[in-house]
Amino acid sequence: MAKKKQSALEEKKGVSISEITSQSSIDLIKSKRKFSPSEKQLIDAILSRDITALSRAITLIESRNPKHLEKANSIVKACLPYANQSVRIGVTGVPGVGKSTFIEAFGKHLTNLGKRVAVLAIDPSSTITKGSILGDKTRMEDLVKDENAFIRPSASGDSLGGVARKTRETITLCEAAGFDVIIIETVGVGQSETTVHSMVDFFLLLKLAGAGDELQGIKRGIMEMADMIAINKADGDNLKPAQLAKVEFNSALHLYPEKPSQWHPKVVTCSAINNEGIDTIWNTILEFVDLTKANNHFEDKRYEQNKYWLIQTIENQLKSNFFNHSKIKDALTEQLRLIESNMTTPFAAADYLLNLLK
Amino acid sequence: MAKKKQSALEEKKGVSISEITSQSSIDLIKSKRKFSPSEKQLIDAILSRDITALSRAITLIESRNPKHLEKANSIVKACLPYANQSVRIGVTGVPGVGKSTFIEAFGKHLTNLGKRVAVLAIDPSSTITKGSILGDKTRMEDLVKDENAFIRPSASGDSLGGVARKTRETITLCEAAGFDVIIIETVGVGQSETTVHSMVDFFLLLKLAGAGDELQGIKRGIMEMADMIAINKADGDNLKPAQLAKVEFNSALHLYPEKPSQWHPKVVTCSAINNEGIDTIWNTILEFVDLTKANNHFEDKRYEQNKYWLIQTIENQLKSNFFNHSKIKDALTEQLRLIESNMTTPFAAADYLLNLLK
Repeated sequence: MAKKKQSALEEKKGVSISEITSQSSIDLIKSKRKFSPSEKQLIDAILSRDITALSRAITLIESRNPKHLEKANSIVKACLPYANQSVRIGVTGVPGVGKSTFIEAFGKHLTNLGKRVAVLAIDPSSTITKGSILGDKTRMEDLVKDENAFIRPSASGDSLGGVARKTRETITLCEAAGFDVIIIETVGVGQSETTVHSMVDFFLLLKLAGAGDELQGIKRGIMEMADMIAINKADGDNLKPAQLAKVEFNSALHLYPEKPSQWHPKVVTCSAINNEGIDTIWNTILEFVDLTKANNHFEDKRYEQNKYWLIQTIENQLKSNFFNHSKIKDALTEQLRLIESNMTTPFAAADYLLNLLK
Repeated sequence: MAKKKQSALEEKKGVSISEITSQSSIDLIKSKRKFSPSEKQLIDAILSRDITALSRAITLIESRNPKHLEKANSIVKACLPYANQSVRIGVTGVPGVGKSTFIEAFGKHLTNLGKRVAVLAIDPSSTITKGSILGDKTRMEDLVKDENAFIRPSASGDSLGGVARKTRETITLCEAAGFDVIIIETVGVGQSETTVHSMVDFFLLLKLAGAGDELQGIKRGIMEMADMIAINKADGDNLKPAQLAKVEFNSALHLYPEKPSQWHPKVVTCSAINNEGIDTIWNTILEFVDLTKANNHFEDKRYEQNKYWLIQTIENQLKSNFFNHSKIKDALTEQLRLIESNMTTPFAAADYLLNLLK
């Protein structure tokens, strides 16, 4: 009876029994809902590609409980040597461009090729609403049911930096759990693209023909970040405009200087809903991976990204420690008042505040 | 003899004796080259519009000697209540657009109207080369000779932040010395425009017809910062292209959302070398000042800028204190090595380094 319930659970979570080597840990994790598996057990289970353990560990990463976070840190650290083997792909585009439909078609294409695919999301608005852009999983019905796919709604948090850390650590766990391709979706607002760009190998920008958001893309540097622009919904009456847009984007991309990766960004058309052009996109990503692994840019970029996250994390923490310090809060208000009444300069005020914590 | 030498000096420096109220301080300052005037003497002389004293005080601001800086801070603080009365205008444009010729024509127009004009510069490259974009004053021959104009080459420094602080404090001194208009030139490379934009009331972008740097301007957000675009060299064969460019820039500006100042950026043509269109530019700036003083945006923006400089200064100092700390330098190298060999994550490394200074 217990066994039957267990396999039903496994089926639902998409765990393939044959992949599990450390069966005893898994049994333990699943036998009691309230039971809290040890770090060692979770790590073993993740490395055995157990999805339930992966989900549990991600929940620890997302927790606000310091004990959970300590545990999460140990697990991430233990998983690190087994991570880094995937291709990380960022997917962005304005709302309405068809991101969910695209990711579903793209994900299915990959699982059909025998790949294991994890889909995560960065949503800056979730830092305010605690919402989640992948919360509505029904938008990716087929992919959700696929046992070689893992879909996780975006982490929420107090800051984009916090959300980014959680996502970055989740990538490590997914890689340790044997996922070959990690797709990170962004809603395409605020700083979310920059954040995603700084944690992926390949950045895919979805566009619509004639949507007129080119200026936005140029202004915010999105076009410049793209390794590929895919003009989606290239079907029916929209096929001709999409092909025209392809030509235009191609010439626009020529205005940018060559990338350090020596990769020339490609422009393609696709129709996610008709499953057209999806294979070309994946093949192009493979070309990119081949090129950048050969010229070492692939590894260099990951190292640079790690350095970026190290520095960012330190800087954010320094600022937060300072401005949330009990001695600073009132003094800052007072200094701002003095500045407003021309009694001090912003620089003298800064010197004064910095000296308070010396 | 001494008297004669003194008035020759005054003439050269453009000091108008009639404006000097605190003559004894001035005498003291000038009588001995080696003599170092007191803070009080310098402050009195600056408020009496003495250019030699102003120059001396700016030299203190630019010094690397901590004692000089202490003195400079006191002087700036004492001048603050007498500052803030000018109109601060930022002027930018790519090299070759004719910034010096424009500033000379514009400055002369203002002194002819009885205004007193100070010209400063921000040059990020000077942080490396210790050079100075206004060093070659011969480019503004007439303005240099004008007793109602004060031209000061850009401050050099270790960082753009340091240069910005020095420029910002120099503005305060110039205002206390009774200058009505402060023009801040930028070379138009790197982050210099953003820096200047954050210390002026009005931001003027000089352009050439058909220069094709629009994409650069859009990408780096320069177009969005502009309160006015002036298409320079609108003369001879270039007149028609300039008028066409005016139409194009006007429609480009319509793509941007309305500014918080409720000011609609204007596009004009001018020929600095023929002194054409210069009066229109100044009259438009006066319109801007009227509008934004009426809707309080003028004061609000200055307050926001001060807040920005306060926060920026603190953040830069926090980072510099941390990363230059003797305990951090080696530990950072070690953590980067651990990250590279997948032994730690950037986040765990950041936690470790932050704990070292706790």
